[in-house]
Amino acid sequence: MTDLSEEIDHYLRRLFPLCRSITGHGNRETLRILQEIIPLSILEIPTGEKVYDWEIPREWNVREAWIKNSRGEKIVDFRNNNLHLVSYSQPVHTRLGWNDLKDHLHYREGLPHAIPYKTSYYRETWGFCISWDDCRRLFPGDEEFEVFIDSELTQGNLTLGEMLIPGKSRREYLISTYFCHPSLANDNLSGVVLTAFLARELMKTPRQFSYRVVFAPETIGAIAYCQTHEEAMKKILGGFVVTCVGGPGSVYFKKSFDPGHWINAVVEDVLRETGEEFLVYPFDHGSDERQYSSPAFRINMVTVGKDKYFEYPGYHTSLDNLDLVKAGAIHQSLGIYLKVLDRLDLEIIFENFNPACETMLSRHGLYPRNDEDLVFSKGKGLNEIHIILWLLFYCDGKTGLNEISRKMEVPVEALGRVAEKLEKAKVLGRV
Amino acid sequence: MTDLSEEIDHYLRRLFPLCRSITGHGNRETLRILQEIIPLSILEIPTGEKVYDWEIPREWNVREAWIKNSRGEKIVDFRNNNLHLVSYSQPVHTRLGWNDLKDHLHYREGLPHAIPYKTSYYRETWGFCISWDDCRRLFPGDEEFEVFIDSELTQGNLTLGEMLIPGKSRREYLISTYFCHPSLANDNLSGVVLTAFLARELMKTPRQFSYRVVFAPETIGAIAYCQTHEEAMKKILGGFVVTCVGGPGSVYFKKSFDPGHWINAVVEDVLRETGEEFLVYPFDHGSDERQYSSPAFRINMVTVGKDKYFEYPGYHTSLDNLDLVKAGAIHQSLGIYLKVLDRLDLEIIFENFNPACETMLSRHGLYPRNDEDLVFSKGKGLNEIHIILWLLFYCDGKTGLNEISRKMEVPVEALGRVAEKLEKAKVLGRV
Amino acid sequence: MTDLSEEIDHYLRRLFPLCRSITGHGNRETLRILQEIIPLSILEIPTGEKVYDWEIPREWNVREAWIKNSRGEKIVDFRNNNLHLVSYSQPVHTRLGWNDLKDHLHYREGLPHAIPYKTSYYRETWGFCISWDDCRRLFPGDEEFEVFIDSELTQGNLTLGEMLIPGKSRREYLISTYFCHPSLANDNLSGVVLTAFLARELMKTPRQFSYRVVFAPETIGAIAYCQTHEEAMKKILGGFVVTCVGGPGSVYFKKSFDPGHWINAVVEDVLRETGEEFLVYPFDHGSDERQYSSPAFRINMVTVGKDKYFEYPGYHTSLDNLDLVKAGAIHQSLGIYLKVLDRLDLEIIFENFNPACETMLSRHGLYPRNDEDLVFSKGKGLNEIHIILWLLFYCDGKTGLNEISRKMEVPVEALGRVAEKLEKAKVLGRV
Repeated sequence: MTDLSEEIDHYLRRLFPLCRSITGHGNRETLRILQEIIPLSILEIPTGEKVYDWEIPREWNVREAWIKNSRGEKIVDFRNNNLHLVSYSQPVHTRLGWNDLKDHLHYREGLPHAIPYKTSYYRETWGFCISWDDCRRLFPGDEEFEVFIDSELTQGNLTLGEMLIPGKSRREYLISTYFCHPSLANDNLSGVVLTAFLARELMKTPRQFSYRVVFAPETIGAIAYCQTHEEAMKKILGGFVVTCVGGPGSVYFKKSFDPGHWINAVVEDVLRETGEEFLVYPFDHGSDERQYSSPAFRINMVTVGKDKYFEYPGYHTSLDNLDLVKAGAIHQSLGIYLKVLDRLDLEIIFENFNPACETMLSRHGLYPRNDEDLVFSKGKGLNEIHIILWLLFYCDGKTGLNEISRKMEVPVEALGRVAEKLEKAKVLGRV
Repeated sequence: MTDLSEEIDHYLRRLFPLCRSITGHGNRETLRILQEIIPLSILEIPTGEKVYDWEIPREWNVREAWIKNSRGEKIVDFRNNNLHLVSYSQPVHTRLGWNDLKDHLHYREGLPHAIPYKTSYYRETWGFCISWDDCRRLFPGDEEFEVFIDSELTQGNLTLGEMLIPGKSRREYLISTYFCHPSLANDNLSGVVLTAFLARELMKTPRQFSYRVVFAPETIGAIAYCQTHEEAMKKILGGFVVTCVGGPGSVYFKKSFDPGHWINAVVEDVLRETGEEFLVYPFDHGSDERQYSSPAFRINMVTVGKDKYFEYPGYHTSLDNLDLVKAGAIHQSLGIYLKVLDRLDLEIIFENFNPACETMLSRHGLYPRNDEDLVFSKGKGLNEIHIILWLLFYCDGKTGLNEISRKMEVPVEALGRVAEKLEKAKVLGRV
Repeated sequence: MTDLSEEIDHYLRRLFPLCRSITGHGNRETLRILQEIIPLSILEIPTGEKVYDWEIPREWNVREAWIKNSRGEKIVDFRNNNLHLVSYSQPVHTRLGWNDLKDHLHYREGLPHAIPYKTSYYRETWGFCISWDDCRRLFPGDEEFEVFIDSELTQGNLTLGEMLIPGKSRREYLISTYFCHPSLANDNLSGVVLTAFLARELMKTPRQFSYRVVFAPETIGAIAYCQTHEEAMKKILGGFVVTCVGGPGSVYFKKSFDPGHWINAVVEDVLRETGEEFLVYPFDHGSDERQYSSPAFRINMVTVGKDKYFEYPGYHTSLDNLDLVKAGAIHQSLGIYLKVLDRLDLEIIFENFNPACETMLSRHGLYPRNDEDLVFSKGKGLNEIHIILWLLFYCDGKTGLNEISRKMEVPVEALGRVAEKLEKAKVLGRV
């Protein structure tokens, strides 16, 4: 394992056991640990606050939760796996027979070894999730059971983490991940960890654009973030919902709602250059793009990952664990995100300072001394004088460098180098 | 025959013998009879009134018109068939030989049994139309003939019928038909009768949009209508020139000038769903789309029918009669028009009341209790939660339901049902 | 040879020997001779004047320039071929050995018989160009040589020629050629001569549009012209960079930057109609389109010619002479330009004076007496009534006749004839 894979592995193991939900101490603890990696700001939004059509729910915390059989043995215990407890379960302490208990038990006959993941954020109830195997083994119908859920639903807060990595330009890309799932590794501890390391990488070198990094509980968290950052969200250039990035399967790409948006083109370019097969999914409402792409914001949000939600066996069950998800896979996804972001960061919009007629290149020290370079019009070659002329032709203050790259069929990196040279010579400038 | 077919048949038979032209009592009588079906308003526009580049002509009426041979026998008589008289023939009473008469006789050698249909609205002349067979039989060259046309061209009016069927929205579709042809069944008594029954059907159920129904003599009548309703005509959403809808041939569809306009898409969808072959004609200047689609109005006007003008044998002759045109065929065309209009009426433009982020469906009683419905992102399936999310995503106050239907690949009827539910829940509303 | 070919030949021979550069008496003399053909205006722009990012250079003139060997023999003499002297060479009179001389000698080993063409407008130096064969033969390394360049670089002017051929409309097309090359026949004496005769032809018949004809030294001349005619240049409809039109090879067409602009469609139509093969080059920065198509002007400039610059052997050497370029080839190119301009000149924008509903054709004497012409809707036939209706339909004051021609699939010449008839009848008019 490389150093970075080891770091990823370290945080996966520390964060996996925490009981996260849409609110609660497990969420705070998760963000606190991520602060070891990046300087996250923490936002606490109080219970009852209206956020668009929604309202921040009460904060949920659990001390313990178990079911005992008639012999007093804990046959289901939240401490063994936080998936055992339906998220947002009301407190309860009672004795009841199988007939009353069974409505509160959830399992999946089709996946007999797996504990399913279940939540009840907005319906007041309680419940336990167990594997079908355990259900059959542990719950003889003639017994009485003791159920204890020491949870509380209180006036509290919903907790968000955010940071803004400022670039030269105040225009921003959004990188958002959700951290409301408890011990589920691909969905979405993988995305949480990747996002933290991605942000750390972005901080290392100066960037053209600014990057807004958001850790929010899915849906309600993203909604709360949009509400509290409405003006900023209306100016986002595009973004990423980072989720399910650590599976063993092949890389996938879920497009944004406007397939013609260049963020899709950039992602496809990067993935195609890897030379490996990848799956492409159309836009859909699977995650927080529901909020970010809603009519008021219409941010083009893409997801790149490994093993998309819904699409892998064991999704939303205890099978989505650290046997399935490996640091190396997350590291691989991280590499793709970095390449995409590097590419996007080159999407600079330049303005030719001499829009009327051509720039006198020699006056600006840009004219080649070497005669060879003057043969500039034989097809779309790559010699510098040719690139300079086309760049100045296209840099009308409205067209980004990636778009120009596609028009010129010249790699954007090469264009970027020439553009910087022209910028230093003060013949063009960033808008 | 169904009841409706019988009704259609009844009116075909009553209306067929009337002598219609661009003006005159036959036109008034036609509209009076149509008032038995629908509450038509009658507009009378006086002779001499300027209507754009045109002028309302004198009103033309005929009492009788015949040719007698030297034995005093009526060999051609307007009473037998109103096609015998060239429409707008001047009054005349004279005796003349074959050489003088023959310039006033019209026939078609290629259709020897048929009386051709001929008009001379804007050139002062008179004439008779007869079959080629009769011509050869009845007009020996050595005889003298008596010609009598008891017509009058007077300061009168051009007569129009119209009604507005108001819907919830004041935005209108135009349904226009022309009723200036005398005893010609497909062109265009069929269209006149269909339009009346179509309007009656539209009145039966509340509509989203308003429908403007116009009975006008072709060309001059449509021009007069545009001139006198200029502002209304500039706001029409689209429309239909109802003509030639009762032939025995296959269904045809004549597109509007902008093939990309959704009225074309809706008609094609409806016709394709019938499972039967249909002919498609490009836009052309065959009828009153010349007026409605002119640069000042540019209304997209389509025609759906059976046996298009110009395209069937016997067109514009006495062969276009009630042997050719049957009530059942008109009934079939009426069914298509109704389906198209129902579809168009679903072209509702909704606005999502929560444009920022997603609507909290459970708060509005829209969240499914059944867990199955939650698996909403596996492809573009049809479960309700999925349709709700996509609908709310697309309902930006600018996009119509049919357009959303095409984007979602979900039948517009299904969308309509869900949209109504969302409307009742007050999470979206009509623009 | 035709008379016109003979005239072209005459001017080729007179103009070929003149020493042209970006400034100087040779340029003035060239324009003076062209004034025998067309009434060119001469513009003199003084040295030092700022033109956008550039500055008008000093004027350069040469009296004589030679190299003598140790025996006093002129072994290289500007009088024999003005290509021998690097354009803008500084004055010099000195004796020097081979080692010092050789840096000032230019040749092409790959084309051993050819004298290369070389300039040094913006770097102060001097030099001679010779064939590789002569270089080896005449310059033994052990000799001393005398170099004399009697040139002067003075406060002077840059000389431009221009004329405006006014049409009915003040909207202009631009026809620009460059005349800064000395004795090079295809690049670009051919373009200079063609442009003069093209302008003479354009003056012969009244035109719809105006034509701006510009003779300018490449780059600096076009820049100076843009700077001094900025407002006019911002309203140009499209144009031509006339260059390399007299080679023996096949016809080529270099597109403008917007391939969808109709000037490209018109050129392609004309070339396709010749029935001969032609080469198509994409837009590139080869010549003065660098100025005219720059962001401030964005004029769509095309080039049609024979043997494009860069693409023929001997390009920019003494092999580009009157053995390569023949009057007949220029005459052929001229014919193409004339056809294209005739076609463009038909790109008239008409406005239907009766935009609401149709024009009453009979009232304007436009309705056919012949019944045959009334069958106007059977497909897109060519009978006149049909053409009239479609023309009036499309003439919305925004759409040009060529565009309507493409939409109607009717030759623009036929449309033009009908449009003129309608114009005379005052039912439509030119915008």
